[in-house]
Amino acid sequence: MSGILYGVGVGSGDPELLTLKSVRILREADIIALPAETAGDSIAYQIAVQAVPEIAEKEQLGLSFPMIKEKEQLKTIWEKNAEQLRKKLIAGKKIAFPVLGDPCIYSTFSYVERLLRKQGFRTEYINGIPSFCAASAALGMPLVQGNEPLHILPGRIDYERKPEGTLVLMKAAKQLKEMKAALAAWNMEGYLLERCGLEGERAYTMEELPESADYLSLIIGKERKNKENT
Amino acid sequence: MSGILYGVGVGSGDPELLTLKSVRILREADIIALPAETAGDSIAYQIAVQAVPEIAEKEQLGLSFPMIKEKEQLKTIWEKNAEQLRKKLIAGKKIAFPVLGDPCIYSTFSYVERLLRKQGFRTEYINGIPSFCAASAALGMPLVQGNEPLHILPGRIDYERKPEGTLVLMKAAKQLKEMKAALAAWNMEGYLLERCGLEGERAYTMEELPESADYLSLIIGKERKNKENT
Repeated sequence: MSGILYGVGVGSGDPELLTLKSVRILREADIIALPAETAGDSIAYQIAVQAVPEIAEKEQLGLSFPMIKEKEQLKTIWEKNAEQLRKKLIAGKKIAFPVLGDPCIYSTFSYVERLLRKQGFRTEYINGIPSFCAASAALGMPLVQGNEPLHILPGRIDYERKPEGTLVLMKAAKQLKEMKAALAAWNMEGYLLERCGLEGERAYTMEELPESADYLSLIIGKERKNKENT
Repeated sequence: MSGILYGVGVGSGDPELLTLKSVRILREADIIALPAETAGDSIAYQIAVQAVPEIAEKEQLGLSFPMIKEKEQLKTIWEKNAEQLRKKLIAGKKIAFPVLGDPCIYSTFSYVERLLRKQGFRTEYINGIPSFCAASAALGMPLVQGNEPLHILPGRIDYERKPEGTLVLMKAAKQLKEMKAALAAWNMEGYLLERCGLEGERAYTMEELPESADYLSLIIGKERKNKENT
C-alpha cells in the first residue's frame, strides 16, 4: 500500500490560481483521475491542464459521478469509484484528482477519500482557492473585515432569519428571486458572480439580476456599511 | 495615477501554498509593502520571501498596524498608511502588500485598500489559501460536504445556539475552555490547529486541548457523522 491519492485544488477557473504545491503534485503524479468520464467533461481537469500541460501525456482514469441524490445509489457510486482508485493505489501509483476550488470544501473527492482512508490507504488534501474567495477578488472587495462572521451556504438558506456579517450562497442559480427579495428585506448589498474565472464570467449587482444564471453561480450578500467606516 | 496596489495572499505558512499569480505579482512589483515596521516582524513577508527570494532585493515600505481597537485612532492609522502608499502610487509604482491567508478575508490590507480605491487609485486582491482551508488539509479531512453550511467566526460566538454544519473559530486562543464546553454540549467533534503551516504547528482534538495556545490558532467544530455516512 505505497500509493497515494491527492485531491488537488485548482481554484475556480484562472489557471494562475493554482498553488505551487498543486502544480508540483500534478507534475509528480503517475495517474490523473478525471472527475468525469472524459477529460473534455471535467472543468477541473481543463483548468489543471492549462497550468500543467504535461498532465495530458499521463495515464488518465475516468471516474463517474452522475447527479444523483438517492443515498444508497450514491454510496454505490462512491464505492465503485473507490474500487477503481484502490487498484491503482495497491499498484503503488500516485494519483492526482483535480478538484474545482478547494478539496476541503464541498468536493466530490472527499467522499471517495473518506472511504479509502478508512481502508488504510494514504490520501492527502492539496488546497486550492475557494470559489467564494475568487469571486470576492473579482468584485475587488473584501468578503469580511474585523469581527464580521462569514456564512457559506450550499444551496439552503433560512429566509426567516437575517444572517449577521456576510453570506455566500453557493449554486445560487435556483434561488435568484428569493435571494434578491431576502437581501432587499434585510437591507444588504448583493452580488451575483457567474462562471467566476471561466469563459463567460459575469458579475451583477442585485439590481441588475438576470432571470436565470449558469449552474456555476454564487451570490454574495453583505451588510451595508456606514460610508465613513469604509 | 498609473501605479497599482496589490494585496497578495501568501496562505497560512507553507510557501508552496502561494499561487502562481501571487508569485508573479511579487516578482513584478517595484515595492514590497511590509505590514509591519521591519521585514523580520511580518509573518506574511517571511512566507513570501521563501517562495520568491528576489523580493528581499526590492524597495521595502514599512507600514505600522499597532493592535488598537479605538475607532478614531484606527482610522488615523489607516489614513497614515494610505498616505505612504499614495505617494508611491502617484509615482507610478506597482506595490505588493503580502497578506497572511487571503486578502479578502479579515485582512488589514482591506482597510487601506478601501480608502485608496475611494480616492481613485487602482487596487487588486490576489487570492491566497485561507487559514481554515489549510487547517482542514493539515487534519486530512473535509471542512464541509454536501449541504452542510460553513460558518467562519472571527472571535465572537453565540454559545446559546448550536450552529448547523461546520464552524471555524478564528483567533481561538482566548476561548479554549468555552469552545471545549460548547462543542461537548452540542455533541460536535472539535480540533485545535496551532500555527498551521508555521514552525511549531500542532493539532489537537478537543480531548487533548492544552491550557493555552498561540495567537495564530483556530478551532474547527464539526457535526458528528453516522459512521456509515463517511
